[in-house]
Amino acid sequence: MRLLEERIIKDGVVKDGDVLKVDGFLNHMIDVGFISKLGAEFHRLFRDCNVNKILTIESSGIGVACLTAQFFDCPVVFAKKAKSINIGADTYSVPIVSYTHGKTYDVIVSKQFLGKDDRVLVIDDFLAKGNALAGLIDIIGQSGATLVGVGIVIEKAYQGGGDRIRGTGVRVESLARIASMSEKGGVTFCGESAGDADENLTK
Amino acid sequence: MRLLEERIIKDGVVKDGDVLKVDGFLNHMIDVGFISKLGAEFHRLFRDCNVNKILTIESSGIGVACLTAQFFDCPVVFAKKAKSINIGADTYSVPIVSYTHGKTYDVIVSKQFLGKDDRVLVIDDFLAKGNALAGLIDIIGQSGATLVGVGIVIEKAYQGGGDRIRGTGVRVESLARIASMSEKGGVTFCGESAGDADENLTK
Repeated sequence: MRLLEERIIKDGVVKDGDVLKVDGFLNHMIDVGFISKLGAEFHRLFRDCNVNKILTIESSGIGVACLTAQFFDCPVVFAKKAKSINIGADTYSVPIVSYTHGKTYDVIVSKQFLGKDDRVLVIDDFLAKGNALAGLIDIIGQSGATLVGVGIVIEKAYQGGGDRIRGTGVRVESLARIASMSEKGGVTFCGESAGDADENLTK
Repeated sequence: MRLLEERIIKDGVVKDGDVLKVDGFLNHMIDVGFISKLGAEFHRLFRDCNVNKILTIESSGIGVACLTAQFFDCPVVFAKKAKSINIGADTYSVPIVSYTHGKTYDVIVSKQFLGKDDRVLVIDDFLAKGNALAGLIDIIGQSGATLVGVGIVIEKAYQGGGDRIRGTGVRVESLARIASMSEKGGVTFCGESAGDADENLTK
């Protein structure tokens, strides 16, 4: 999606340790009007899928998930990072290894809010190695819900998580796919990000 | 706001330990259409205040803050709960005692995203003892920004945090104010919650 790629070029900062900081519009300050345009694009991509629930994970997925859900007219469920002590019989849970924080934590979703009648679109801000996403997909599997697809704002494609999950048959649409990045060289994108029909969208 | 009080009566569950669970529409599953109506009400209350930024705190404030910000056409900044190791010269920080989790953590906001030209509305899902809110107000003070007011979804008025902060001259508007609650007796509300003009709003 060209609009997003341009914004990443303009406002993103590549930091040491393979980190792309997009704090200025996505995951510390949220440019609500701009993120809503990404939500409209997710809706264009998945509008024929009878989505009735959006699943994300706290914290930085919540904003984009809520702004996307408005187009689908459906609720958002956000998975919580929990202490193991909170995991009871009434929750689905899965351990996730965090790439950013270098530790394992449990992610939980209340059984009350996800079940076999749900058609779920997963929305998240970043996809790198895919550990968090694989965890969410595992939880959807536990619940018996149908996963219709995954919408990602920024995929670090060179880390392979997206293709690994696509290889299991899951539809993953990323609005910007980063081919490579470095402090000196900046960011380069793959040619085939989702949403390159956005000239139509923004007219 | 009658609409919210009715929803709390319908879907809220009072749990042992003075906990009101509203997981079904506010802080695990988010009823985006409903929460957007609360955002419209916050806008009605603060629309003459020239708000140009909304400040909240992760995680459960983010959804309501984003859905409210759409009415103000302004960005959301969410304060992060951080490890002290992350606090550098480029962040405002304040220690907050968590009532829910029984520990102290540091809350940070990047200096880049809050400054003296900002007119800030604080939005959060819950107000009980007011520790988190006092921390956010402290951060706004550090930044030199102007605090125009505070919009809270549910205030546990009997815990006194809201009145303590009102006593310092801050305008605090809560859409539902709980006078008392118990597992057996359910929830009773104060008479004077904000937004009781919502009959007009929902027409």
